[in-house]
Amino acid sequence: MPQALTRLTHATHGQGFYDLTRPVAQWVAEQAPAVGLLTVFCRHTSASLVIQENADPTVRQDLTTFLDTLAPEDDRYVHADEGPDDMPAHIRTMVTATSLTIPVERGRLLLGTWQGLYLAEHRRRPHRREIVLHLLADCA
Amino acid sequence: MPQALTRLTHATHGQGFYDLTRPVAQWVAEQAPAVGLLTVFCRHTSASLVIQENADPTVRQDLTTFLDTLAPEDDRYVHADEGPDDMPAHIRTMVTATSLTIPVERGRLLLGTWQGLYLAEHRRRPHRREIVLHLLADCA
Amino acid sequence: MPQALTRLTHATHGQGFYDLTRPVAQWVAEQAPAVGLLTVFCRHTSASLVIQENADPTVRQDLTTFLDTLAPEDDRYVHADEGPDDMPAHIRTMVTATSLTIPVERGRLLLGTWQGLYLAEHRRRPHRREIVLHLLADCA
Repeated sequence: MPQALTRLTHATHGQGFYDLTRPVAQWVAEQAPAVGLLTVFCRHTSASLVIQENADPTVRQDLTTFLDTLAPEDDRYVHADEGPDDMPAHIRTMVTATSLTIPVERGRLLLGTWQGLYLAEHRRRPHRREIVLHLLADCA
Repeated sequence: MPQALTRLTHATHGQGFYDLTRPVAQWVAEQAPAVGLLTVFCRHTSASLVIQENADPTVRQDLTTFLDTLAPEDDRYVHADEGPDDMPAHIRTMVTATSLTIPVERGRLLLGTWQGLYLAEHRRRPHRREIVLHLLADCA
Repeated sequence: MPQALTRLTHATHGQGFYDLTRPVAQWVAEQAPAVGLLTVFCRHTSASLVIQENADPTVRQDLTTFLDTLAPEDDRYVHADEGPDDMPAHIRTMVTATSLTIPVERGRLLLGTWQGLYLAEHRRRPHRREIVLHLLADCA
């Protein structure tokens, strides 16, 4: 099994960081590669991926405040038809990640101790977000 | 054919987002992998890669304004020998992407409906930009 | 040898950009793939990866000033227990890269002429940072 592909769908209810670490790690563990490479890809332009501290939730609170300040909801945008949170969401997506690649060893993601994998939702209303997972596993 | 490699050269004429989706998708389709992983790599430090909305062009207009505001052309920079747009270009490159990885299925990039792949040019003068495409295809 | 994995440990002594290009390129050269894909992964949430100009060091100086201004050390953060430089470090990590993928040809990274690969340390105190390198090499 050299390559595996799957899709994760995650329901979001407003702006914030949604922890994907467990379902992603579980799918990788099921493929059980001795060595591998996981790619996580977010199929949206107003939601993105972030690897950040998984311990103290106030870190995510400050990250949210930072993104709010960086691209505030106000009248500066030309593209405003889809609501005041739409263009800020595109900007916040651009400065974070749409794809991430994580090495795998003995069926486990080589994340650091304090690293969690998050879906960052940048829109206010509920959305169903689709994440593609691609695993390169042992070629033998 | 487990791996394929090619180079795309794109002529730019000033700051903005240049759509690479079609030539990249076409090259991937020619390799026709059942499952694969595409890596897009930009060989520059004053131009970068962005996946963003492919529908309303005002989104890209607002993204450009955002980058202009984030790293303005003024006299704050020590590195100014290569022109007032050089250091802002390095900063705008740093906060966007130099490499992207996109899963592939049945010869098609698994981009979302509204996702386009763009070369973001951050310099004012015309440049020839080189993009490397690497495709991991079926190992059998 | 389709896949290879190794870890680099780098000692940092305060904020700045630490050049990883040489040790990373050397490890890749030792694996000698005709075609390949290198993934660089940083196992931390207060240090990150940046590909930037390797010539004039004032570029890195201006990048540091930019990051200082983007996420300054002040009393705006809720998460402050780990020191005034901790939350700015998380933010600076979020807007740069945790993973990078670089195509390889004839044993050489396909970096552009002016591209260097840097570990960006965002904390003030000395740290030992762990970087995982994953190489996909020829499958035959």
